[in-house]
Order: sequence, then structure tokens, then C-alpha cells
Amino acid sequence: MSAPRSLEALIDALRKLPGVGTRSASRMAMHLLQHDRSGAEVLARALQQAAASVRHCSRCYTFTEQEVCDTCLDTTRDATRLCVVETPADQLAMERTGAFQGLYFVLMGRLSPLDGIGPREIGLHKLMDRACDGIVQEVILATSFTAEGEATAHVLSEALKTRGLRVTRLARGVPVGSEIEYVDLGTIAHALADRR
Amino acid sequence: MSAPRSLEALIDALRKLPGVGTRSASRMAMHLLQHDRSGAEVLARALQQAAASVRHCSRCYTFTEQEVCDTCLDTTRDATRLCVVETPADQLAMERTGAFQGLYFVLMGRLSPLDGIGPREIGLHKLMDRACDGIVQEVILATSFTAEGEATAHVLSEALKTRGLRVTRLARGVPVGSEIEYVDLGTIAHALADRR
Ligand SMILES: [Zn+2]
Ligand SMILES: [Zn+2]
Repeated sequence: MSAPRSLEALIDALRKLPGVGTRSASRMAMHLLQHDRSGAEVLARALQQAAASVRHCSRCYTFTEQEVCDTCLDTTRDATRLCVVETPADQLAMERTGAFQGLYFVLMGRLSPLDGIGPREIGLHKLMDRACDGIVQEVILATSFTAEGEATAHVLSEALKTRGLRVTRLARGVPVGSEIEYVDLGTIAHALADRR
Repeated sequence: MSAPRSLEALIDALRKLPGVGTRSASRMAMHLLQHDRSGAEVLARALQQAAASVRHCSRCYTFTEQEVCDTCLDTTRDATRLCVVETPADQLAMERTGAFQGLYFVLMGRLSPLDGIGPREIGLHKLMDRACDGIVQEVILATSFTAEGEATAHVLSEALKTRGLRVTRLARGVPVGSEIEYVDLGTIAHALADRR
């Protein structure tokens, strides 16, 4: 005795999602079949629709359904500043601050030599072409403050500086709302060094 | 600026899966679009295929693609014993032991009054009809050994006994491979009371 073949196939497909093991794939499949068949249909159509229509903006490489995304097309933005982020989610977070009026370049990853993700995979050449359009004056590196994100920022910074561009990095420091007592020591040390 | 509409729709649909929040739904969608578009297609088809072809066995209520499942159709099994489990996964676990040759009834849940899951939702009437076919002599309750699973077993047991059926329950006891020192006290007490 075993599960029906189409149920096995569904569990296999769900298990390929990041962070989903056999047990949770099985729970998801059971839930959909037992309680939410219309949810299964909606998810199937959403997958097909997104796979068919989402592509990368030819200028900033973020996800879009157009050749060039709305942000890149927005002529009211400051085209002299280019902010480099790892993912579309990071770009959205920057936008939500309302503090940045320039344009973006989305790496769609960060350097991770152990995983085979080098300068080519994160589009270093595309970024160099984009940043050297003669309009961009400052490139703001907003990659993560992790080992990989810092290494990425370092490599990009070296490459961009050779082209005479001004390269800056988001400030490290104590997060807003933190009590000093609970902030990790490395952060305090950086905040002290970068005091203003 | 916001994510493309079809990407938003995909994240929304993924977020409806059990155990998936906004953040992991977003990570799943990004992963599929960035690294595994064929995986998105495979998952979409698996969802549609399973939703279209998986139904409940008319005799034991487990998932099957047939009117009556292979297990219920298997004439070599002992039709005098009926094992009641909560889910198809529990049924598979019982089958893998190789220790049970009888038939099954799958509740597809357990009593949970706070969630509105009462005797009707777990198919008490269907179970009574099934168990009173004149062939079944013993009903083995293999619901979970949790508060809800025990309550379910109690209610089923009371109902089945009124029809003159022999009702048994899986033994509680010390799991195979356990050191007594690390077994919880309730389990030890039950194993002592049920000693043999
Ligand atoms: Zn763009
Ligand atoms: Zn059946």
C-alpha cells in the first residue's frame, strides 16, 4: 500500500521548495487536498502566471513584467545616484524608508565562492556598464552586513573606484530603538569609530 | 514602487500553505523565479493533477484515485479487524510495520471542539456504518496519544461498544530503544500499569 501517485508527485514537487522537508511537504499536500482544493488551483495558476510573465529589468535587473521596470522609467528620480542591493526584497525595504530618490541595481545574490557564486553570477559586468553611463556619480553599496555581503561590497567597491566613481556604503551603527547594553560588541565598536 | 503583480499573487498563494509566513513565501517565490522556473511548472501541474484526481475512498475514506482504494479491495486482508487512524500518513506508518493485516478507516482528523471539529466532521456516522457491516469484529483505535487523540478514541469507543463491537486501543508504553531514565513519567506509569 502506498499513497496515490498524483499525491506522491505533489509531495515531491513541494519538497523542492526552499526550507520544505518531506514532513512539511506532506502536511501541505494533505492540507490542500483535504481543506483547500481551490487554494491548490489558485497556487497552480499563480505559479504559471509568474513563471510566464516575470522577467528581469534590462537596466536594474530587478523582477518586472516589463522590458524596463517602472522605477528605472521614472524620470523624477535622481539618476546620479545608484543604490546596489542584493535582492528585490532589499530594494523594497530601501523604498519603504522613503529616504532614497535615486535608482537601483539588483545583484540577485551576493558573492559566495563556496556555492560557486562569483563576480560573473552577480552581474559585475552589467553593474559596471550600468554605473558607467556617464550620468551616475555615486554608487551606494547596500549589500548585507554579513561576511558575504561585506566581501561583495569590497569587490564591487574596488572595481567601481577604478572607473572614477564615488562609492559609499550604508553606515554601520546601533539600530534605532536599541539599548546599548544589548547591542553586540562589534556593532558598538563600529558605531564608535563612525561617530559623528 | 512595488513587486510585479504576478509575483505578489504568487507570494499570496504560497502564504496560504500551512506553516508558511510572508517571509518564507517570498523566499520561495524568489527562488522559483530566479533559480527554478521548471520547478514552478512541475509544481503547478502536480497541484492541478492531484486536485483533479485525488478523492476519498468510499469505504475507508483515505486518499485514492479510485472509487475504492487498493487496500479495501485486497481480499487477502483480514476483514474482521478494522484499524481507525487519524490520517493517511498514520495509515502508511501502520502499514510499514507489517504487523497489521486488517482494514482501515481514516478519520481525516481528530476531535477538536475548539476548532469546530466534532463527531460529524471526523465521520463518526460513516465509521459506525463501516464497522457494523456484520464482518468487522474488532475495531483497533490508533488515534494519537495526545489529549485530542485520546478524547477522539474515547468518543469512538463509547459509540462502537453500544453496537456490540470489540474495541481495543494501541498499547501505551516505553518506546523501543529508550533508556528508562529519559522516558517521561506519564509513559512510565502507563507502561507499569499495562505491564505484561
Ligand atoms: Zn529597472
Ligand atoms: Zn479504502
